[in-house]
Amino acid sequence: MADLYIVDFSIHDVRFPTNLSGDGTDAMNKECDYSAAYVILYTGPKGSAANKDLNDASASPRGFGMTFTIGRGNEICCAAIKSLVEHALLGKSVRSLTSDMGKTWEALVTDCQLRWLGPEKGVIHLASAAAVNAVWDLYARIEGKPLWLLIASMSPKELVSIVPFKYISDLVTPAEALAIFEAAEKDKAKRIAELQADGYPAYTTSAGWSGYDDAKVARLTRSALAQGFNHFKLKVGANLEDDKRRLGLVRSIVDNPAEIPKGWVRPSEASVAGKNAGPTGAVVMIDANQVFDVSEAIDYISQLASFKPWFIEEPTSPDDALGHAAIRKALLPLGVGVATGEHAHSRVVFKQLLQADAIDVVQIDSCRLAGPQEVLAVMLMARKCGKIVCPHAGGVGLCEYVQHLSLLDYVCVSTTMERNVLEWVDHLHEHFKDPAKISEKGRYVAPSAPGYSMEMLASSIEDYTFPTGSYWSKGTARTPPKVEGH
Amino acid sequence: MADLYIVDFSIHDVRFPTNLSGDGTDAMNKECDYSAAYVILYTGPKGSAANKDLNDASASPRGFGMTFTIGRGNEICCAAIKSLVEHALLGKSVRSLTSDMGKTWEALVTDCQLRWLGPEKGVIHLASAAAVNAVWDLYARIEGKPLWLLIASMSPKELVSIVPFKYISDLVTPAEALAIFEAAEKDKAKRIAELQADGYPAYTTSAGWSGYDDAKVARLTRSALAQGFNHFKLKVGANLEDDKRRLGLVRSIVDNPAEIPKGWVRPSEASVAGKNAGPTGAVVMIDANQVFDVSEAIDYISQLASFKPWFIEEPTSPDDALGHAAIRKALLPLGVGVATGEHAHSRVVFKQLLQADAIDVVQIDSCRLAGPQEVLAVMLMARKCGKIVCPHAGGVGLCEYVQHLSLLDYVCVSTTMERNVLEWVDHLHEHFKDPAKISEKGRYVAPSAPGYSMEMLASSIEDYTFPTGSYWSKGTARTPPKVEGH
Repeated sequence: MADLYIVDFSIHDVRFPTNLSGDGTDAMNKECDYSAAYVILYTGPKGSAANKDLNDASASPRGFGMTFTIGRGNEICCAAIKSLVEHALLGKSVRSLTSDMGKTWEALVTDCQLRWLGPEKGVIHLASAAAVNAVWDLYARIEGKPLWLLIASMSPKELVSIVPFKYISDLVTPAEALAIFEAAEKDKAKRIAELQADGYPAYTTSAGWSGYDDAKVARLTRSALAQGFNHFKLKVGANLEDDKRRLGLVRSIVDNPAEIPKGWVRPSEASVAGKNAGPTGAVVMIDANQVFDVSEAIDYISQLASFKPWFIEEPTSPDDALGHAAIRKALLPLGVGVATGEHAHSRVVFKQLLQADAIDVVQIDSCRLAGPQEVLAVMLMARKCGKIVCPHAGGVGLCEYVQHLSLLDYVCVSTTMERNVLEWVDHLHEHFKDPAKISEKGRYVAPSAPGYSMEMLASSIEDYTFPTGSYWSKGTARTPPKVEGH
Repeated sequence: MADLYIVDFSIHDVRFPTNLSGDGTDAMNKECDYSAAYVILYTGPKGSAANKDLNDASASPRGFGMTFTIGRGNEICCAAIKSLVEHALLGKSVRSLTSDMGKTWEALVTDCQLRWLGPEKGVIHLASAAAVNAVWDLYARIEGKPLWLLIASMSPKELVSIVPFKYISDLVTPAEALAIFEAAEKDKAKRIAELQADGYPAYTTSAGWSGYDDAKVARLTRSALAQGFNHFKLKVGANLEDDKRRLGLVRSIVDNPAEIPKGWVRPSEASVAGKNAGPTGAVVMIDANQVFDVSEAIDYISQLASFKPWFIEEPTSPDDALGHAAIRKALLPLGVGVATGEHAHSRVVFKQLLQADAIDVVQIDSCRLAGPQEVLAVMLMARKCGKIVCPHAGGVGLCEYVQHLSLLDYVCVSTTMERNVLEWVDHLHEHFKDPAKISEKGRYVAPSAPGYSMEMLASSIEDYTFPTGSYWSKGTARTPPKVEGH
């Protein structure tokens, strides 16, 4: 194949009207229109015009990437992606980008003028994620592999070469990383085959949104049990009495052996007290989405400890590593662990959360961190500190992204999925060409299509583009095809 | 006066070509075009058309605000300011905004959809600063007072009502803040009069940019001595031998009694060993602009300790409170303190820097933090922890902003300027209508014009608007009037 170049790109402000249904509501985020700041990289011979017909399967390979927002401001991320792609990707040869994904990461993240806008945080880092992920998607499509297998096929030395160690060398060095990757070479093929056969364990948040009434929570909890789920997450923090009632309701269902369907798998035992608390072993987690100050979090969550949650997620500001450490210290005697990370904006924040022994569960986000390179950096630190990685998902596109990352963690870093679970929320998958899927055992199915699973249907991009698409301008949109198994 | 409303706004992407001169260069930021994402709020009777003639002094009051960037990406901040102002300010009555500046802050910072883009960090927080500051500028113009005096005129209870305590109540409570403000009531009028007579102590960074050769550094150091400066900051971190040579050069000038001009004031003694190290008492500080990992910082700065810098500024990632604590612990026995903050994006980051005892000097930034409300939160925490606040300035507009904040600190919070110094960089002041000024004693002159000193000359906005202004499109720009005393 002749050398390919990034000859053009397009940016799409795609917003889905999830606010209408109460999906995604929690104590902090009371109205969410799940949105994607979406980028397509078009390739071709140097200087050629891009073929932008998204329905033309014969076109030169493309890279699809996005970052996730909850509505207003999605246009700001689009503006940032435009600046980054123009500056660091447009006109470049694809081989020059993909042959050194560490250098490509640096070009996108460390340009001093754009870095000033973070540094490495907020809109500019969200936009870096979209751009980095689009390059990976393109790379994996060209190689004909799903992203997780593309990266898992790299040698330990190649893996070390793509990880950004800047600012984290006091916790993990390149030499330590190499040792971790080398140790994971043993039985690697076996783990890959295991994932391809059985998938990866998941938990569901679908039943626990604040905006749902008790009847809907009960119905969705039973439905999740029937789908094979054995970990259930609820939103808390808006009202203590409501939270007690809803936690009691969910516990009364998932702890009742009579409610457990045939073939349902009891979760493996775990080191945190709240896990496997009830007679069925079903696990419940709670998520406060940053609503508390430190002492408030301790007081409030202590009053929910009798419901034996495995962890409280995001008890306070995601920037407050020392605050999380104080909360963890107070709650651990009550058997409640601490999780955070969906808003932890860089490997530096995770480094401190780990150094301060502030969390039990590391929740990386595929769009807050600037792509798999930085995610690997966090996974290495978690591995060194003996913590597990349970990525954040939901929204739009996040399940599609993070399934690759958890598989990669299992194959190349953690080598265990004993206690790891990957968030699953059943929203908006129908808008993707290769949507994430859950098996009848309540597990993610390992993705097999080439790429990073980020190609959105051309009709969905058109219809939900804000504010000009047919949904936002006329209130109409085409119905995407039904996704098998959803 | 009839009720005024925010009837319109304009956003301006203003960029100055400072990269041509090497101004602003350091080990991290090698090319800087100092830029302002600039907003003007226009007022008038409800629903009226805005008078946008910036040369019409009879127009209804305006509010001017900006956030600072170093070039590329300034347009992203402009897009974010537009979203925020449209969402939270446009169409609102001015009185409804200014009568509760705590609530106005919340409306600008905590909208859940826009908050997702940070939260409280990066582009969206920089944009919040521009918007919050524009409302303060408008408020102070309407009241006919310089911003610092407007806020200093508030009662302790009013001051508490504007401070955001969210996420910091584990370090400082509203009751503790009230006690600090109440204690500062004593001799308040005396301190205000003192500032109006003698101004506020300053330090200079003008001589120490990486891009300057030794002859220029020597010339500018002597010139700064002649202007009365007694604190000098140099950029380090690009090359150890260069740094040693330049530090030796500066020390050889400022430590030499023969170089000291008549009337020059020896700085007051201080608790950190590196201060007042030489025979003249002149103070030298160094700034690494985040280039080091933690252990690199310790190694490198240890080798500069013999030059007795008061502090090393930004030795590593601004997000790394625990890293700063490790660096401080290692360097304190060598007599070198640690300063940081110009990239610390919120009160939560400062809270941790203080809780971890990671810094000696708190360097707030008027555009990274979302306006005086959040700056006050940080000043209160610094006061409680016994640390001093020396704001970051330079760039474009930052000196104009922070002079108000340091004065406010002295009048209402710290009540001392014994060891506090405010950064001064002599760039681009000529583009402002009421520029910051330095007296012949090397001190900031207390601003007296109504507002937050943020009105840029209409001709400068026009000429330097990117990319359509005459400078960027044709290479020509009008020369602003010379500023007295610069």
